[in-house]
Amino acid sequence: MKTYFDAISKIEYEGPKSENPLAFRHYDKDKLVMGKRLEEHLRFAVCYWHNFCWEGKDIFGLGTGTMNRPWHQPGDEMEMARMKMDAAFDFMAKLGAPYWCWHDYDIAPEGATIKESRNNFAAMLDVAEQKMAETGVKLLWGTANAFSNPRYMCGAATNPNPEVFAYAASQVQNAMAATHRLGGANYVLWGGREGYQNLMNTDLKRESEQLGRFLQMVVEYKHAIGFKGTILLEPKPQEPTKHQYDYDSATVFGFLQRFGLEKEIKVNIEVNHATLAGHSFHHEIATAASLGILGSVDANRGDYQNGWDTDQFPNSVDEMILPCYEIIKAGGFTTGGFNFDTKLRRESIDPDDMFHGHIGAMDTLALAYTKAADLYESGELQKVIENRYSGWNSELGEKILSGGINLKDLSQWAVDNDIDPKPQSGKQEYLENLVNRFIHK
Amino acid sequence: MKTYFDAISKIEYEGPKSENPLAFRHYDKDKLVMGKRLEEHLRFAVCYWHNFCWEGKDIFGLGTGTMNRPWHQPGDEMEMARMKMDAAFDFMAKLGAPYWCWHDYDIAPEGATIKESRNNFAAMLDVAEQKMAETGVKLLWGTANAFSNPRYMCGAATNPNPEVFAYAASQVQNAMAATHRLGGANYVLWGGREGYQNLMNTDLKRESEQLGRFLQMVVEYKHAIGFKGTILLEPKPQEPTKHQYDYDSATVFGFLQRFGLEKEIKVNIEVNHATLAGHSFHHEIATAASLGILGSVDANRGDYQNGWDTDQFPNSVDEMILPCYEIIKAGGFTTGGFNFDTKLRRESIDPDDMFHGHIGAMDTLALAYTKAADLYESGELQKVIENRYSGWNSELGEKILSGGINLKDLSQWAVDNDIDPKPQSGKQEYLENLVNRFIHK
Amino acid sequence: MKTYFDAISKIEYEGPKSENPLAFRHYDKDKLVMGKRLEEHLRFAVCYWHNFCWEGKDIFGLGTGTMNRPWHQPGDEMEMARMKMDAAFDFMAKLGAPYWCWHDYDIAPEGATIKESRNNFAAMLDVAEQKMAETGVKLLWGTANAFSNPRYMCGAATNPNPEVFAYAASQVQNAMAATHRLGGANYVLWGGREGYQNLMNTDLKRESEQLGRFLQMVVEYKHAIGFKGTILLEPKPQEPTKHQYDYDSATVFGFLQRFGLEKEIKVNIEVNHATLAGHSFHHEIATAASLGILGSVDANRGDYQNGWDTDQFPNSVDEMILPCYEIIKAGGFTTGGFNFDTKLRRESIDPDDMFHGHIGAMDTLALAYTKAADLYESGELQKVIENRYSGWNSELGEKILSGGINLKDLSQWAVDNDIDPKPQSGKQEYLENLVNRFIHK
Amino acid sequence: MKTYFDAISKIEYEGPKSENPLAFRHYDKDKLVMGKRLEEHLRFAVCYWHNFCWEGKDIFGLGTGTMNRPWHQPGDEMEMARMKMDAAFDFMAKLGAPYWCWHDYDIAPEGATIKESRNNFAAMLDVAEQKMAETGVKLLWGTANAFSNPRYMCGAATNPNPEVFAYAASQVQNAMAATHRLGGANYVLWGGREGYQNLMNTDLKRESEQLGRFLQMVVEYKHAIGFKGTILLEPKPQEPTKHQYDYDSATVFGFLQRFGLEKEIKVNIEVNHATLAGHSFHHEIATAASLGILGSVDANRGDYQNGWDTDQFPNSVDEMILPCYEIIKAGGFTTGGFNFDTKLRRESIDPDDMFHGHIGAMDTLALAYTKAADLYESGELQKVIENRYSGWNSELGEKILSGGINLKDLSQWAVDNDIDPKPQSGKQEYLENLVNRFIHK
Ligand SMILES: [Co+2]
Ligand SMILES: [Co+2]
Ligand SMILES: [Co+2]
Ligand SMILES: [Co+2]
Ligand SMILES: [Co+2]
Ligand SMILES: [Co+2]
Ligand SMILES: [Co+2]
Ligand SMILES: [Co+2]
Repeated sequence: MKTYFDAISKIEYEGPKSENPLAFRHYDKDKLVMGKRLEEHLRFAVCYWHNFCWEGKDIFGLGTGTMNRPWHQPGDEMEMARMKMDAAFDFMAKLGAPYWCWHDYDIAPEGATIKESRNNFAAMLDVAEQKMAETGVKLLWGTANAFSNPRYMCGAATNPNPEVFAYAASQVQNAMAATHRLGGANYVLWGGREGYQNLMNTDLKRESEQLGRFLQMVVEYKHAIGFKGTILLEPKPQEPTKHQYDYDSATVFGFLQRFGLEKEIKVNIEVNHATLAGHSFHHEIATAASLGILGSVDANRGDYQNGWDTDQFPNSVDEMILPCYEIIKAGGFTTGGFNFDTKLRRESIDPDDMFHGHIGAMDTLALAYTKAADLYESGELQKVIENRYSGWNSELGEKILSGGINLKDLSQWAVDNDIDPKPQSGKQEYLENLVNRFIHK
Repeated sequence: MKTYFDAISKIEYEGPKSENPLAFRHYDKDKLVMGKRLEEHLRFAVCYWHNFCWEGKDIFGLGTGTMNRPWHQPGDEMEMARMKMDAAFDFMAKLGAPYWCWHDYDIAPEGATIKESRNNFAAMLDVAEQKMAETGVKLLWGTANAFSNPRYMCGAATNPNPEVFAYAASQVQNAMAATHRLGGANYVLWGGREGYQNLMNTDLKRESEQLGRFLQMVVEYKHAIGFKGTILLEPKPQEPTKHQYDYDSATVFGFLQRFGLEKEIKVNIEVNHATLAGHSFHHEIATAASLGILGSVDANRGDYQNGWDTDQFPNSVDEMILPCYEIIKAGGFTTGGFNFDTKLRRESIDPDDMFHGHIGAMDTLALAYTKAADLYESGELQKVIENRYSGWNSELGEKILSGGINLKDLSQWAVDNDIDPKPQSGKQEYLENLVNRFIHK
Repeated sequence: MKTYFDAISKIEYEGPKSENPLAFRHYDKDKLVMGKRLEEHLRFAVCYWHNFCWEGKDIFGLGTGTMNRPWHQPGDEMEMARMKMDAAFDFMAKLGAPYWCWHDYDIAPEGATIKESRNNFAAMLDVAEQKMAETGVKLLWGTANAFSNPRYMCGAATNPNPEVFAYAASQVQNAMAATHRLGGANYVLWGGREGYQNLMNTDLKRESEQLGRFLQMVVEYKHAIGFKGTILLEPKPQEPTKHQYDYDSATVFGFLQRFGLEKEIKVNIEVNHATLAGHSFHHEIATAASLGILGSVDANRGDYQNGWDTDQFPNSVDEMILPCYEIIKAGGFTTGGFNFDTKLRRESIDPDDMFHGHIGAMDTLALAYTKAADLYESGELQKVIENRYSGWNSELGEKILSGGINLKDLSQWAVDNDIDPKPQSGKQEYLENLVNRFIHK
Repeated sequence: MKTYFDAISKIEYEGPKSENPLAFRHYDKDKLVMGKRLEEHLRFAVCYWHNFCWEGKDIFGLGTGTMNRPWHQPGDEMEMARMKMDAAFDFMAKLGAPYWCWHDYDIAPEGATIKESRNNFAAMLDVAEQKMAETGVKLLWGTANAFSNPRYMCGAATNPNPEVFAYAASQVQNAMAATHRLGGANYVLWGGREGYQNLMNTDLKRESEQLGRFLQMVVEYKHAIGFKGTILLEPKPQEPTKHQYDYDSATVFGFLQRFGLEKEIKVNIEVNHATLAGHSFHHEIATAASLGILGSVDANRGDYQNGWDTDQFPNSVDEMILPCYEIIKAGGFTTGGFNFDTKLRRESIDPDDMFHGHIGAMDTLALAYTKAADLYESGELQKVIENRYSGWNSELGEKILSGGINLKDLSQWAVDNDIDPKPQSGKQEYLENLVNRFIHK
């Protein structure tokens, strides 16, 4: 079958000395790291939306996109959807990422009615199922697009109109069932427009209760159908709306607790959403891990000088090594993985550009993860932490944490003993050098 | 008694036509708003630290400060502390703010040992108690400074050393007892250095558990001594540390839930901390109110172009009216109030500058609150919200929220009815004009 | 003639007590301020692009827009362009803004070839000319859209391909001629994509020389055709590209000097672009005025929590009074004016929303300008500045500035006289209260 | 001689396999890169201020610092200054950085009068001169601290009081003479408080003229005394003041042109100041190089989540390689070099921490520079750029740039030829991978 990517062959691992831009230099999928193949650690996934649906439009170029893919031309929508899927699976098979991810309306055109939309989707699911079988590409997660259609302009589950809630419910139920059918490892909910544009017209409390109920319904449905994957929420602080309720991992954790869902739902952390929230990606990963809700990762990057979601391909081992270390320390991915929610620059319009983006990203993460594993296995960082907090293993430390002493008595103890604990160096620069030693061996 | 502010007389309300810079133009404390005196609504408090302790040093001018107050000269520390307190109460009495706020080491110099510090503090509490009786100035809240001394450089409750936790406990216990003795309406904890400088040397989970235990001890102590005020946490996202655990109201709420404290502790929201966290002040107030944890306010402002805590005096009715509206909607302050955690510009070195800052802030808030009350009483905004969400009072809406329908059935209902809900205008611009109508009558 | 805005009547001035949302409360166009009618001071202009061309799409909703205007339906493009223009002039006439502004492709659809585009444009210019005559609406400025078509994805004048430069030249020449024909008061160039996405593929020096040459050609052409309006550059720091060359007013001034254009070109300052550049709008206005390049203003506002160009309607007198003061101090607008480069929120989809946005903006600026004029006429701020710098009128001050003393001699003089100048209060809080006195009289 | 750093020996290069934290792993000063020794390329300098003067105070810890150096104890100030200088030269000699940098009041305490300050400074210059001779450490640049003393709170050259200008002139003249005497390679001016806190009390135009005159006096004096080094301005956008006049390189260039100084003064670019200005460091270097004003570098780093000048040690090869590439492309440093204007974290209080910070920074830059040289010598990036712009070597391109065609004729040519230039991919992802290939060989 001829596809858009015909000129490009399967991407092979050629090792660090290779100068072939269409080969992996670091992602050797069969390499054993901590006793497991890299492919199984990293669980890379290609996203359908940015790669195959986005036409290269932006807010200052809404008319004609730059990407000019053959399936973005006028014509029968279902035919175009099939041409797109041919190209997509050709791309994924050649790239060698083991997973893919989609929104319902990425793979099938939205119809004029719910039923037509469902029929389109069902037809494309058949195609997808067959393609997955042929190529061996698996589903990391599915999700529903409940933000693009104007009906969702004021939110989906948080919409002032309960019929919009119901419309979103119908999409999410259908997309969950499809994810289950395709053997998806997770199901994701990204808020999209679950947030506010202004507080004057917004009932915050009511909207949060709507959203809480929606999530409970999703979890109940998961159990009802026997879906064993993880339900994931993807935090994002703002954009498209002024403020979004799933601001960051800590906010999501508070929300989940409020609705009794903190054991049922985890987070899908996106690098660029972390930075938009004023956090390092490292922070978001470490926070989620410390709260027991680390699920999966959208592995992209933002631009530190631009205040919107640029969704660029990750390209810095320096930035990725410590988040990878944190993931390893937390036990590695279970159902989650690294999904590339990444977008070519609008000017990168050649077919090979999509390969360059993914190859660079996969090499970067393979390198970062391998070096992080090396750092982890050395135990050097962990030892610093253990020493640093070792005082908490003392009688005093344990008494405090176990509730064995109250404020008044502890205060009195401090006075009676006239304590004067001395500051100890935090050794940040030493630790930065230590990490760099593992990066540049 | 001669003080630093001798040249200035009591500040009187002279009305909006006054051109006297040392008079109130809008803060008429006895004016009835919604049946209550403005003074009782606003509950203004003067902070001790920025006003009387700060010498006008900044990070590029650490040697000599610009403020050059008489009590910042070399000399006996306790004598200076008394001179400072004379000036402070003279200032507060002349200004006519009904409350004050302090850190333990604001009012009494830290000594060489815990005991010496406690003795100094006890001596100054006697002075303070007498001054309060003489002037009628009441205590809005007390707090402990567990961040300036080098022993706290890596945190207080979250320190790697449990002795530092104990040291902080001794200060907090003592400051709580003092607050109770002085009839304080609240007790505040601001994280200070409860956060991290880097994640390499930090055990996030352990530190959060330390902090959780500390807060539980504080709440237990409150009940043990019969303190009826509110315990408040003050969120701040960063500065002095890279990241602080009490990032914002939503994060604090999640934290409180985790340790079973969400009914015991509320938030003290600072305007500038909201903006540093990437939120509008309005957002923080509305969020805290919607979660039932709105306690008190540090009424200052930041600079939208500067990324640090400038703690300027509030001067914009436009910025304050909607937060005031939100406070009124939530029932107004109970134990909380508007504390001016505000700092003169480092170049504002005259004695009268401290009056200008506070007069402007009090006038701004008096005007904003009065106009917000007017807006609230008109019911115009509330009506827009009620109409907007009225669909949720329908059978469908109530069934969804009450758990009377599951995802599958709701989805089926949407399909069967082929629903196609239409978007309704959010009317943001109309609402902005509505608010402006109340500002510029 | 029936148009989209039929249900709405002409907007009248009804005074501050009016509660009619479709009336002006402060913009009394005939009110005399400093001896001139408000309309002549403010020179309000309605922009064509956001109001009439934008369909309500955003980056998360690229398919169907929310605005659903009748002229955004499928059909003959020129017919739609005429329907749009009918509605636009109906809107402008009802609103009573004296000016409009356009890009070439706002008013006429781009064709398949340059010639077709020119023909479309010429046809619509005829319509526009007639509409202007009928309604009395005048042209504040025209400009060319050299950023939406994919050919401009890597810049127009700064494109790596000189044919793209030539294409842009053809559009700009044609749009300048059209502006001249319609009696435009200015011609604007906004960089659009004149910037870079990354420095790896960019020759900064070469691109700046291309842009310099382009601007010189524009200025030469202006003189050749006898256009008496002002050429304006609109600074913007980033978006759509990572970095844009016309970053801010100071950067533009340096650029203009480098190409000998600082007497020929002024700036069109947009509020939201100022804030994206990390400046207050006040700063940009004051900087441009101090450099003699203050031309015109795109009067919108950004969102301090969102890092992209939200282009909201201005709604804060507090934010606008000092920029207006600065404009008045600089002598007021000559050819420039306040253009509303403003965009409805994507959720504000009713026909009356476009009126609410503009009415609020015009009232806000009318109030801010009137109060600023009052402040200016009082001389109070100016007097503070004159006193503050009065030392520079001394012999020492004049000798320094006139070059009458060199570094060595001045140094020696300081040593010999053992000078020790004392700091003087900057009185910021006093001045903030002074300005507030003029806002809330 | 016993010093604070006695326990630490000379830092040696041990190669990338070394696990000794007190050794260089990449900075092999004698390694030849592009035919020149690394030491001569990089020209590392240690700064006096952060390393030896800062006591570990911050704005939330103004009382006692954390650093607790022996020379920060009470005692005779000149004796302390000598003890500090002993330690400083011991540190620099052990580290092996070939240069140092200072402010006047870093090395000698400010006295009660100008004369006393000058005497202190002169005495310490004698010590410094001897230490330099003994250790071989050379002076990269000197500068004057005209921002810490309260007299400078409203600026130095831009102060409203010309006597403050004169005071600053006396310091700068003296520091320039000292720099000349010690064989300094450059003289730096950092604005400090040359900016504004608010525009209400500021005469922007006047202040810029004061600053312009000051710089002219500096340049005239340089020539008068025969100083052959470069005069450098260090841009910084804000902090300590709200806005600083030397905002960024483009702003400084415009300012220099305005006062005829663009051939006389270059910029000293600080990484963290670039990021505070909303730019990448790469941008600032490339911009300055393209304008011919690239002078020297303060090689530190900021924190992308913190909005103030954290001045951390550079630790990312990923971030430094392209700026190094740009420096190499511009011909490398002449008088400039990499000065570490870097500050230990306030918690890094051990003597060895100062070594860890510098070793990591020097290794990072050595690695980045070496890899950048490799990339440069490969010609791969340069070739991409040459191809990309090759159209400008055509007849059309040259005619446009040389002024050989005017706007009208170029427009006509485009129409006549019905040109339709096609977009070409910008290949960003390909180029990112190319750079990464040079980082991870
Ligand atoms: Co994502
Ligand atoms: Co994203
Ligand atoms: Co506060
Ligand atoms: Co603050
Ligand atoms: Co604009
Ligand atoms: Co804009
Ligand atoms: Co510096
Ligand atoms: Co710095």
